[in-house]
Amino acid sequence: MRCEVVAVGTELLLGQIVDTNSAWIGERLARAGVDCHFQTRVGDNIERIVVALQVALGRSDAVVVCGGLGPTPDDVTREALSALLGAPLVRDDEVLARIRALFAGRGRAMAPSNERQADVPVGATVIEQRRGTAPGLICPVRPAGGAGGSSAAGSVIYAVPGVPREMTEMVERAVVPDLQVRMGQRSAIVSRVLRVWGEAESALAERLAPRLRALDVAGNPTIAFLASGTEGIQVRITAKADSPEAAGAVLDAEEAELRSLLGEHVFGVDHQTMESAVAGLLGEQGLTLGLAESMTGGLIASRLTSVPGASTWFRGGVVSYAGEVKFDLLGVPPGPVVSEPAARAMAEGAKRVLGADVGLAVTGVAGPGDHEGVPAGTVVVGVAVGEASEASRLRLPGDRTTVTQLGAISALDVLRRRLLARGGDDSG
Amino acid sequence: MRCEVVAVGTELLLGQIVDTNSAWIGERLARAGVDCHFQTRVGDNIERIVVALQVALGRSDAVVVCGGLGPTPDDVTREALSALLGAPLVRDDEVLARIRALFAGRGRAMAPSNERQADVPVGATVIEQRRGTAPGLICPVRPAGGAGGSSAAGSVIYAVPGVPREMTEMVERAVVPDLQVRMGQRSAIVSRVLRVWGEAESALAERLAPRLRALDVAGNPTIAFLASGTEGIQVRITAKADSPEAAGAVLDAEEAELRSLLGEHVFGVDHQTMESAVAGLLGEQGLTLGLAESMTGGLIASRLTSVPGASTWFRGGVVSYAGEVKFDLLGVPPGPVVSEPAARAMAEGAKRVLGADVGLAVTGVAGPGDHEGVPAGTVVVGVAVGEASEASRLRLPGDRTTVTQLGAISALDVLRRRLLARGGDDSG
Repeated sequence: MRCEVVAVGTELLLGQIVDTNSAWIGERLARAGVDCHFQTRVGDNIERIVVALQVALGRSDAVVVCGGLGPTPDDVTREALSALLGAPLVRDDEVLARIRALFAGRGRAMAPSNERQADVPVGATVIEQRRGTAPGLICPVRPAGGAGGSSAAGSVIYAVPGVPREMTEMVERAVVPDLQVRMGQRSAIVSRVLRVWGEAESALAERLAPRLRALDVAGNPTIAFLASGTEGIQVRITAKADSPEAAGAVLDAEEAELRSLLGEHVFGVDHQTMESAVAGLLGEQGLTLGLAESMTGGLIASRLTSVPGASTWFRGGVVSYAGEVKFDLLGVPPGPVVSEPAARAMAEGAKRVLGADVGLAVTGVAGPGDHEGVPAGTVVVGVAVGEASEASRLRLPGDRTTVTQLGAISALDVLRRRLLARGGDDSG
Repeated sequence: MRCEVVAVGTELLLGQIVDTNSAWIGERLARAGVDCHFQTRVGDNIERIVVALQVALGRSDAVVVCGGLGPTPDDVTREALSALLGAPLVRDDEVLARIRALFAGRGRAMAPSNERQADVPVGATVIEQRRGTAPGLICPVRPAGGAGGSSAAGSVIYAVPGVPREMTEMVERAVVPDLQVRMGQRSAIVSRVLRVWGEAESALAERLAPRLRALDVAGNPTIAFLASGTEGIQVRITAKADSPEAAGAVLDAEEAELRSLLGEHVFGVDHQTMESAVAGLLGEQGLTLGLAESMTGGLIASRLTSVPGASTWFRGGVVSYAGEVKFDLLGVPPGPVVSEPAARAMAEGAKRVLGADVGLAVTGVAGPGDHEGVPAGTVVVGVAVGEASEASRLRLPGDRTTVTQLGAISALDVLRRRLLARGGDDSG
């Protein structure tokens, strides 16, 4: 099964937006065992979208066309599909009602231009939209002499919105499963990601080297490393078996093997984040958290409150950006603010002022440049639990944004390991 | 003159690397007045690279092929060009000597595999490499019956490396000037983006409808809308003229025209964010800001502190996630916490506790589900300036994440409009 991606948008060609959608779809197709040999970008132009789709259909069995489903006049993917398929657009009452209801629910009037989003080429199936207004489309293409794809059963075009969060949801829920049915896939390819923090990719590879060599010989499962920017490293296990259940059992066994080698460096699985790991430990131990952050400027609070149910364990935070806020509000004693004593005092202050069981504090210099003699990239993390408090000094690489992001996840990791140790003590 | 981009690399198709090169080249071509209607990604495969180049040459006068010029066996762009052009590869002694000298200068031995980088298809011209080892190539393509581009003089393929810093230097120095010579003219295409908040895309389109119709007739400049998720809408003006200066003048005039129609809905230009707009106004008016946020959980503080120089006007913030923090730390009177009185008291409390001139507060229900009878999506924003405070109630769509993100930018927008009004008062 070969599937191409056609990304629609003049802004992509002009370089005003980098086309991350195609990369995401390509990765997702590869994981599903679908070959993606070509990806095309084309502007908001009916004739040229048709050309791009024709070329893609001439080489492949399926095409995901992404973007151009919005309500404005430059959104013409529906019209291009209609022209290509020779299928007139018919307004779908059910879709229209859904869009109307969406606007009504937001207390806003629906502009007449939104009605276009309910237009569906005759013969196409609607993919329900769950995160926005424009539905997706599944358009079967009848085989044509010479111009059809390699599949005798005809090809298919999937149209999905260009808004990434709408696109990804729709591809996961509707496009990949439909492709799998068309492939008649009997073997299951399943992946699981172990999320790791605290070691460089090369160190990790060395730690796992004997296991990787053994798997190279066996061939199943396979292991891949993927650096994910400031969110650590992903170790992806991919297993192939006759059924999803059998593949899952292979994943379970390999996960246990890798965890025995990686220990506390593993903070989560698949989409679990560092903040959800911290949330889990706080919940298990019945503790509430108060936060004091300066350098990270609210980023840690923002990450923690993105975890569903955060209100059960998150009391709140103080973003002590100005020095006076540290002294007056958190009771930090006079002295250098990027220091172990200050970080400990901030953690104790956060715990006290916010009425929490645990205080976490971060102070540091994000840069650019030194601050009061402290080099950029210096971060001190304070943790206060019960009567005890401690501080860890880190040195992080990168520019202002990177140091801030690494500082946030590093601080959460310090807290995670502290809570793990505490949990271990309790149970010991 | 039409020029396509073909980016080569299996890692691009698999989503392991996002193809930023094509975006950069597309932007550069547009600025040079070259139309780029299609961009293609293809893997490290001779046959498929040839297909991609043939398709591109069938539609355009020129192709920039980017990547696949390295020394490893999977770098096969040279071989694909040779196959496409029917021109054997000949090792270029001058290029080889240059690569040898480069390795010698670094005190390293040159691996035999690097010799391949000196292979040049007969009839092609070498683009000197100034930042790495692989030279670029200018390959004239003789017009062939039906398969050639629209140029009677034949088409051209430019091969450049995939390493961004090598690619950009080569495109600037050799590719764009060569294209301009072939065009025999220098028209410039320049874009500017107005960033807009406070209206749906469809409403915006209707507001601008008469102007859009007028421009449709004139044809220059053109206007396009681009929804950018929770960051509002981008209105892109694109102008074509004989020189960058003349195109800039067209943009200036159109920007003024659109601003007269959009008024305060325009919060920035090009890469300006809502937080930088707020930062600019606070800086102009010499005001410091203190923040109190519950529902947005630190996101507003995080966005504000990402603005360089934030320490001059940002005092800090309180993330009052638990009700007690609102009452005890911010002095919010007892009562419902998602309400106008609570939002005003939070703003006043933030201003007081953090020692700021202006207090901004956000309280609301992100969901999922209602909270104390208040429906998800309800957000109340409080602003306190001097002795005065006011509150605005908003109703935002989407899931928890979306409501939080919309809540953050909406609150910043409320503050922006308040500061604009204040600035207007002062000057009045």
